[in-house]
Amino acid sequence: MNVSEAIETRRSIKAYDASHRMSEAEIEKLMTLAMLSPTAWNIQNWRFVLVKDPEQRKKLRAAAWDQAQVTDASLLVVLTADLKAWDKTPSRYWKNAPQPVQDYILPAMHQFYEGREQLQRDEGMRSCGMAAMTLMLAAQEMGYQSGPMDGFDFDAVSRIINLPTDHALVMFVVIGRGIQAAPPRAGSLSLNDVVVLDTFA
Amino acid sequence: MNVSEAIETRRSIKAYDASHRMSEAEIEKLMTLAMLSPTAWNIQNWRFVLVKDPEQRKKLRAAAWDQAQVTDASLLVVLTADLKAWDKTPSRYWKNAPQPVQDYILPAMHQFYEGREQLQRDEGMRSCGMAAMTLMLAAQEMGYQSGPMDGFDFDAVSRIINLPTDHALVMFVVIGRGIQAAPPRAGSLSLNDVVVLDTFA
Repeated sequence: MNVSEAIETRRSIKAYDASHRMSEAEIEKLMTLAMLSPTAWNIQNWRFVLVKDPEQRKKLRAAAWDQAQVTDASLLVVLTADLKAWDKTPSRYWKNAPQPVQDYILPAMHQFYEGREQLQRDEGMRSCGMAAMTLMLAAQEMGYQSGPMDGFDFDAVSRIINLPTDHALVMFVVIGRGIQAAPPRAGSLSLNDVVVLDTFA
Repeated sequence: MNVSEAIETRRSIKAYDASHRMSEAEIEKLMTLAMLSPTAWNIQNWRFVLVKDPEQRKKLRAAAWDQAQVTDASLLVVLTADLKAWDKTPSRYWKNAPQPVQDYILPAMHQFYEGREQLQRDEGMRSCGMAAMTLMLAAQEMGYQSGPMDGFDFDAVSRIINLPTDHALVMFVVIGRGIQAAPPRAGSLSLNDVVVLDTFA
């Protein structure tokens, strides 16, 4: 499936075939593609929680206003971000770069993030947003449907997945065999509504 | 180009052919595809600033540590988010939905976002992250290269584009004809580093 077809046909699907299982090879392919999403300074700050345990799925569904896709989708990915990835052995993110590049990049990266809590959080949201889109388009190509979600109790989900205190919970992506098509688009803005030339008025 | 090929071949490119111009039709295609990216509650909270004016590009380059791609790429998209999109005539986001859906969704959306400033900001980052990835993969299919950027002075850029106070600046995406291949990947983590089964330890 080509890229524009995947973008145009992807819709957020809520009803899935609960009996369908995805193979480990399919899951590995999806996650390997997700990991090719870019991150600032190559910090690869996403941490993907794959929830396979049915009991864990039930708890998360309860924390997500009982939305059926949380248990019924073949794959539930909880996207989280390590807010301190930039400070955890950052040399590993640049180990293949020439030494002068490493010598420049590593202190600059540290200076960019240190003490800037909001920036660290924003970075997690940006990185996971890009990875989520990659996952959904890759799933589309593999013949699956998907849905992004942030309609859940963030505190409850954080407890259920035992989220480390230096991580942020970002969103869910569910992937599986959709059993009900999406309704028509609910109300799309026009290019004029969202595109600005050069500067805001 | 199929989706997985686009994901696998996309790299963040920094050097572009400054003489290349993108047609208006190509730009419209890219932005129309970007607008098919999902947003929570369909709030379509991205606002894309297309910077065409060469003087404006120069100012932004100065605010981005003089990185050449800011002036040399064919297209510079400054992704911003309207933090109050959920509260600006929200009925337009659901105008095609059945009335009972509208009657349920609109108050629920309001309750979800009202007074939750950090959530509103996170939503902007998530939405723009997904749209940025869509832009980059669509560009790849169109034979272009691209690069996401957040290495710039956010305050200076906000002033240059006259960012409204109820918007957040998220990131840049540059798109154009790359003239220098990316170096080998600098240091990729493994699946084991970033994938967690069911729950954090």
